Amino acid sequence: MTQKKAFFRGQTWLQCINCGHKADLFLERKFRCPVCNDLFEVQHDFSQLPSFEDLKFLFDSRANMAGIGNSHDPKRRSGVWRFKELIMPFLPDDSIITLGEGNVPIISAGSHLREWVGDIDLYIILEGMTPTGSFKDLGGTVMISVAKAIGISAIGCSSTGDTSAMAAAYSAAAGIKCFVIIPEGKVTAVQFAQPLIHGAKVIILPGSFDDCMKVEEALVREFGAFPANSLNPTRIEGHQATVFLIAQHFGWKLPNWIALPVGNGSNCSSVGKALRLLSELSSGKMSGTRILGCQSRAADPLAESWRVLMGDNYDGEYYTGFGQAWQEKFRKKKVGETTATAARIGDPVSRVKVMREIISSGGAMQTAEENELNEAVAVCGMDGYFVCPQTGIALAGLRSAVREGWIKKGETVVAVSTASGLKFTESAVRDSVKNVISLNDCKPETTAKALGLA
Amino acid sequence: MTQKKAFFRGQTWLQCINCGHKADLFLERKFRCPVCNDLFEVQHDFSQLPSFEDLKFLFDSRANMAGIGNSHDPKRRSGVWRFKELIMPFLPDDSIITLGEGNVPIISAGSHLREWVGDIDLYIILEGMTPTGSFKDLGGTVMISVAKAIGISAIGCSSTGDTSAMAAAYSAAAGIKCFVIIPEGKVTAVQFAQPLIHGAKVIILPGSFDDCMKVEEALVREFGAFPANSLNPTRIEGHQATVFLIAQHFGWKLPNWIALPVGNGSNCSSVGKALRLLSELSSGKMSGTRILGCQSRAADPLAESWRVLMGDNYDGEYYTGFGQAWQEKFRKKKVGETTATAARIGDPVSRVKVMREIISSGGAMQTAEENELNEAVAVCGMDGYFVCPQTGIALAGLRSAVREGWIKKGETVVAVSTASGLKFTESAVRDSVKNVISLNDCKPETTAKALGLA
Repeated sequence: MTQKKAFFRGQTWLQCINCGHKADLFLERKFRCPVCNDLFEVQHDFSQLPSFEDLKFLFDSRANMAGIGNSHDPKRRSGVWRFKELIMPFLPDDSIITLGEGNVPIISAGSHLREWVGDIDLYIILEGMTPTGSFKDLGGTVMISVAKAIGISAIGCSSTGDTSAMAAAYSAAAGIKCFVIIPEGKVTAVQFAQPLIHGAKVIILPGSFDDCMKVEEALVREFGAFPANSLNPTRIEGHQATVFLIAQHFGWKLPNWIALPVGNGSNCSSVGKALRLLSELSSGKMSGTRILGCQSRAADPLAESWRVLMGDNYDGEYYTGFGQAWQEKFRKKKVGETTATAARIGDPVSRVKVMREIISSGGAMQTAEENELNEAVAVCGMDGYFVCPQTGIALAGLRSAVREGWIKKGETVVAVSTASGLKFTESAVRDSVKNVISLNDCKPETTAKALGLA
Repeated sequence: MTQKKAFFRGQTWLQCINCGHKADLFLERKFRCPVCNDLFEVQHDFSQLPSFEDLKFLFDSRANMAGIGNSHDPKRRSGVWRFKELIMPFLPDDSIITLGEGNVPIISAGSHLREWVGDIDLYIILEGMTPTGSFKDLGGTVMISVAKAIGISAIGCSSTGDTSAMAAAYSAAAGIKCFVIIPEGKVTAVQFAQPLIHGAKVIILPGSFDDCMKVEEALVREFGAFPANSLNPTRIEGHQATVFLIAQHFGWKLPNWIALPVGNGSNCSSVGKALRLLSELSSGKMSGTRILGCQSRAADPLAESWRVLMGDNYDGEYYTGFGQAWQEKFRKKKVGETTATAARIGDPVSRVKVMREIISSGGAMQTAEENELNEAVAVCGMDGYFVCPQTGIALAGLRSAVREGWIKKGETVVAVSTASGLKFTESAVRDSVKNVISLNDCKPETTAKALGLA
């Protein structure tokens, strides 16, 4: 343990994103700055990092899949730990808990989607093809490895969806207790299934989702529980893999835009952090990628405050002090109904981080209308991919950005698909009932006629 | 089209597994031998195949993931078409329809599962991490590419589960019409969702599942529909990728055993076919892998007939003529209830192929008890993996085979996980309700006490 303590104290630390106060990752349990109550982010001492050329060679070698059966090295088996030197460089390898996450496909968008979105060069990174079926696994493997290394005994969250599934699966793999807090009467069999199959305790409370969040926060603040939600900045480090995977996929080149849905904001924060890191490492050669943050009409507090601030005078350049001005304009929002329940958040925990990254990348925010995000899911279905409604937000927002001229003709865009559609089957079926044909007999001719074969 | 016709006629053909009658893949639509009504298998002219050393080098080069963003070559992007020379060598590349399937993880089994199964070196190939969430995609990409090349206009099946999802997704990607026939009142929202999201027509009939199968067979026989179920031998060619992926993963070495669930039998047939091919290509160096076919107690017609035939006298060696003797002993079986619904088949279509492969590999059949297959799913959950109940059959059968001494201490086994647990959430939750705790108030102390944190 001595080596691990030394690692966290000297080489990796927490730093408040507002006042710069430094904290010890090995001791910190509340994940709120004691000086100003703002969020922490993880910082590493990168002074001993190999050259970027050496790093790229190393990462490419590890990504060679052939014959890895003989290797138990998590840096070869995981598409997150492949980039360990950039993600959690000083963590001892034997502390790594991996489920083999991160080897996700990056596909060229199908013909239906390309036509629907407009005239851009569009790719999708399918982060639903992970052990628990969502992008959370990319951050989860890092969060749980740190938790294991610092001796955490209980991990919890109050998510009803992807976060609870991730927390339960990785806690099981690490041998750490996990709990999930959910509101009575609001939980479907699918939402139940993943925490339970991974042995988590599921606490049901007689209240709203907000009540559950408050209990969770109190457990972190007062009872030493380790949070699995995006309050925990160690998760952000892992989510950075999204950008590294994209860069590597294109031969260490970056697209013009990365588009993604914004709920609590962990994914957007980490994409920005990783883009800044790659720009620095490449001495500015890999730079200029802009972030498109997308929200649903039912829950678009960040997109709305961004629009309000910009007004009609925005000329495509952010002025100094924009971040501070934005913070003054931000209002949390009462959320409406949407099929994209995983991003139905009116007061995002990581809102300041998100907007810092959008702004510093020269990016934009967009609001996706409910019918458009559902249409996007259906269009992906016609190309053979079943994506979640949150992916629909990113794609619908992307289409708006193309129409409004934010994204120019021919530009390269990678959209992040955050989860598998298998987690959201109810909403997907709703619009397709026209394709269901009930017949009155079992004669083959009747079916053949109904199908136009006879 | 001339080139494609020439390809199919001269270099790849169909051959009856019973009487050897040859048929033209380009023309055949009924997929039953006109002479003896038995099944077809696909045969290729391998006389011009490169040396095995060259093939291994080629396959390993294609498996290098880094920088494939610049390539639209399906042989690099798909873990099935990577092995095109062995799977469908003469199909023109521009006929390939791929969703990026086949780049599935092969994991070392977790500690809970290793303890549960017994003292063997156990790995799992997670074929649920595919575009539609099941192993069917590995065969589906080949089936649909052939269908596209030969000009098929409608593809269908009467599966309520994985096959219909695969057929719908790949048909969408290929721009071919797809239909799925299902019995009234037997379909859940999840089973509905995948065909519908991919734009398939869903026909609901007032009858049993068997009635639906009969209609489907009549549509193939009399109305020119192209079958997506395992009657279609082009699917088998793609499923062979399971073995090639395993071999490549271990540096072109094979495990002592491959264990898998047996429903209609397409997967078992293809594993055997691929093992025979690798043995031949390597001049016998890659040989000796035995197949363990596993069925649930509720639907074990093949395992039962195999046990009956062997009696107590089996000495571990199959005698000549065993195959014929087995066929005489086989009785189809009335199926019982099981959570492993996808393998609930009393009269498997590919039964003869399956038993030929089990026998020629020196393998064995096992029956998994219902409680054991569910326990296997729960044990995987504790390692962080959510697998389907059919995977549970393979793992429970594997444990029996270890206990009975079929599989020896220390032997290497790869178990095939056929689908994601996300498709089978209802059954997974049933045994975990003890972990659900309903509380009477929203005070943090109450939750902390319930969790043992206070």
